[in-house]
Amino acid sequence: MSDVRQINLFFNPRSVAVVGASRKVTKAGNIIFKNFVENKRRGIFKGELYPVNPRRKLILGYKCYPSITEITGKVELVVIIIPADKVPRIMRDAAVKGVKAAVIISSGFSEIGNHELEEQVTTIARKAGIRVLGPNCLGVYDSNSGVDMLFLPETKVLSTGDEMVATPRPMSGYMAVVTESGAFGASALDYLAGTQLGVSKFVSFGNECDVDESEMLHYLLHDEKTRVILLYVESIESGRKFMEVAKEITREKPIVALKSGSTRAGARAAMSHTGAIAGSDKIYDAAFMQSGVIRIRDMDELFHVGKALAFQPPAAGDNIAVLTDAGGPGIMAVDECESRGLNIKEFSSRTIQKLEELKKEGKIPAFATNLNPLDLTGSATSEMFEHGAKILFDDPEIHGIIVIGLHQVPALQEDFVDRIANLSKNYVKPVSACDIGETEMALYIRSRFDKLGIPAYSSPEDAARAMIALVQYGLYLKKNGYLERYVENFLKSVRM
Amino acid sequence: MSDVRQINLFFNPRSVAVVGASRKVTKAGNIIFKNFVENKRRGIFKGELYPVNPRRKLILGYKCYPSITEITGKVELVVIIIPADKVPRIMRDAAVKGVKAAVIISSGFSEIGNHELEEQVTTIARKAGIRVLGPNCLGVYDSNSGVDMLFLPETKVLSTGDEMVATPRPMSGYMAVVTESGAFGASALDYLAGTQLGVSKFVSFGNECDVDESEMLHYLLHDEKTRVILLYVESIESGRKFMEVAKEITREKPIVALKSGSTRAGARAAMSHTGAIAGSDKIYDAAFMQSGVIRIRDMDELFHVGKALAFQPPAAGDNIAVLTDAGGPGIMAVDECESRGLNIKEFSSRTIQKLEELKKEGKIPAFATNLNPLDLTGSATSEMFEHGAKILFDDPEIHGIIVIGLHQVPALQEDFVDRIANLSKNYVKPVSACDIGETEMALYIRSRFDKLGIPAYSSPEDAARAMIALVQYGLYLKKNGYLERYVENFLKSVRM
Repeated sequence: MSDVRQINLFFNPRSVAVVGASRKVTKAGNIIFKNFVENKRRGIFKGELYPVNPRRKLILGYKCYPSITEITGKVELVVIIIPADKVPRIMRDAAVKGVKAAVIISSGFSEIGNHELEEQVTTIARKAGIRVLGPNCLGVYDSNSGVDMLFLPETKVLSTGDEMVATPRPMSGYMAVVTESGAFGASALDYLAGTQLGVSKFVSFGNECDVDESEMLHYLLHDEKTRVILLYVESIESGRKFMEVAKEITREKPIVALKSGSTRAGARAAMSHTGAIAGSDKIYDAAFMQSGVIRIRDMDELFHVGKALAFQPPAAGDNIAVLTDAGGPGIMAVDECESRGLNIKEFSSRTIQKLEELKKEGKIPAFATNLNPLDLTGSATSEMFEHGAKILFDDPEIHGIIVIGLHQVPALQEDFVDRIANLSKNYVKPVSACDIGETEMALYIRSRFDKLGIPAYSSPEDAARAMIALVQYGLYLKKNGYLERYVENFLKSVRM
Repeated sequence: MSDVRQINLFFNPRSVAVVGASRKVTKAGNIIFKNFVENKRRGIFKGELYPVNPRRKLILGYKCYPSITEITGKVELVVIIIPADKVPRIMRDAAVKGVKAAVIISSGFSEIGNHELEEQVTTIARKAGIRVLGPNCLGVYDSNSGVDMLFLPETKVLSTGDEMVATPRPMSGYMAVVTESGAFGASALDYLAGTQLGVSKFVSFGNECDVDESEMLHYLLHDEKTRVILLYVESIESGRKFMEVAKEITREKPIVALKSGSTRAGARAAMSHTGAIAGSDKIYDAAFMQSGVIRIRDMDELFHVGKALAFQPPAAGDNIAVLTDAGGPGIMAVDECESRGLNIKEFSSRTIQKLEELKKEGKIPAFATNLNPLDLTGSATSEMFEHGAKILFDDPEIHGIIVIGLHQVPALQEDFVDRIANLSKNYVKPVSACDIGETEMALYIRSRFDKLGIPAYSSPEDAARAMIALVQYGLYLKKNGYLERYVENFLKSVRM
């Protein structure tokens, strides 16, 4: 079996044994087994399902087996949720049964110093050719195949008796999440569900006794559902392997990485968290840069940049135009771009001439400034946004456009969003957008932009950072000769 | 009349004339006059109200005057919304009438090169002793007095016929907004309304032909409703005056400033926006630092830091503890703190000893790490958060606590928020909090923290940045000997 096909068993198993399946609702073994049962009932999970627990005959209507070896059918994947010291025995059973993939959710291994126990598990797995995810992880969540190993229940009951969504399962989306921290992973799912961005595949790999982040990334390269990979790591054990794999992937799919433990105190905390030696932060910086991985240093930016890369093509250069109806926010976007190395240069004389013509025709305000930003001022209308944007799209010296359309401006109608989105379809030039505010219309404008494939943000700086990532990735692809092919594939995938 | 009493006329006038009041719903003069009418009807605005428009006898039921001079009663404030070239005549009328304050909403002055016209207005005002706000501004919004000069209608009607909140008027809150950019101001109101933080007073000062940001700040020093001042500027004309005033204010109230135009391209954009010369960014940095102004460089941070300073006392030092139930997010907070100069040092031996005792008693998990962060792990409960927090509050070497309580952790109940908030009342030690996610429970946990006076954020880095500002401000106050008095007043104000 090829590596990719074997890793695929974690996401698309035709048969799963859940070892430690339980009737007790507070137990992880209950929650995980129930996830599978419910997804099977809904027709999302299509594999065979076997609870394993020697003390039960039936769990949630399914025949329960005392051990894996007694299951009559084939078992492709086992999910293990029992105390750590009993895991080696289960792994031996799995080997006997001919299982090829195991996820060990249980903790109590190297993360608390039990290196020997973990080594024991790894040795059994290697001999039997079983690939192992974990231990000490949340495992896999796949919105498409219905595999859901999250032991965090979807809702919680408050002391008042009220039930609330606590660990939502996001719908299918374009971003995959690969995370060393389970807690970060769970909260990423909550974010991606609440913002309706969704997730293609989710993997929490924990102690990575066998399958590591590099192999997961490599697998995701071949996953059609995944356009962008979001990676959270505290350390990377095999840097050389990571760089090789990352280079291969980033030709075709962006990787956005949040590597924490970058400071002295952060590294100390990372060591006590997963036992990992965080290593020199500068080395990580260099490794990410050389392999085309976009490193960000802030959780929000991870999601924001991921959305930008999922929605928009990368920029073919670093000259960016800002189109705005608000002077101050326009300047904020410019500051952010320029302080991070982008070019916000004055428009070409040809473009200025075209803008002056628009002014004469009364199509943009006579007092609009056109030095970059093109500031339509508080007199802006939807038509003016469209006229102005067209000239910026047409300018070959401009590689990307940040649109700041504050809805508060009196004469601006909501259709400026559709106009810009329609226009942008005629060009291969990335756009990011901003509207500020937290009430009805602001939420509407941003979600409309998102729906039409233009990533929208609630601050000018966030819209600028999205563009910065699109430029950074575009320049990497261009330098290495991959840009054209990437853009071609990207457009195909977006038009699907 | 003292300066402060005269500036107070902008916010608490006993009589207002609206020059340019109109019946036409699309006109700014309609919207502004209607704001006053509605707030008067609701009993919020208590002053006399006079529409001025030579072409009408009645507007919205109010007797309309052909000019200010024909109004029989006293007029304390005029709000002017007519074409720029007619403003000098109105100012002369105001002088004759003995008006002492004028807000010129109209644009068409120095921002488009009409310096002479602006000069003309200023000369009339100076001779007559009229203080002028504007021109080219949004004027004043005061949630307490009912003064609302925003010409941006509260709702907009979409092309579908649906009505949506577009420029909400926030409820009363602890933060004042002073802004050079009207558009930024409008979107700040939208943010402060949607996040339910509210606003105490809002001033958009536009071209500042007379009253400038320094005078506004000075006025706000005496405003009991305002705990924190948020300032947006593109340039400060009189740096010396600003520093003097700012020094006086920051002893008693924090000023958080977003000064844009910090880059070369940003400064160019600022110049074309308000005609201001942005000046060297380093000089601004030094001026803000010397006068205790907290400079931030990101719009979201402006609001986040404002909330922190409104809710929590400043820190008396820079040793910060992180209490978490999630390893990864704990490290992110540590990275952010340390990269910005805070100390996340290991806990004292006394504190470690106490934590070890808790472990022996089973009050926190035996495998919790206590090197700072104190990581309660995914086994955390509300009781554990309380026990752990108490020890950190009791440690005199710790000056502030960042609490990361990811609600996804299975055994954690929502009452950990109340427990920490109650505990914190016994100490004068700032706390900021984080829960990650965008669905039901995450929103609930954050809003509960906020309600109990602990500023909560959706990312570990944001919670860290809030603490960084509390430390920065605390160290400034301490260095200058103001800390004790500030904290005393702050506690009084919070307990009101």
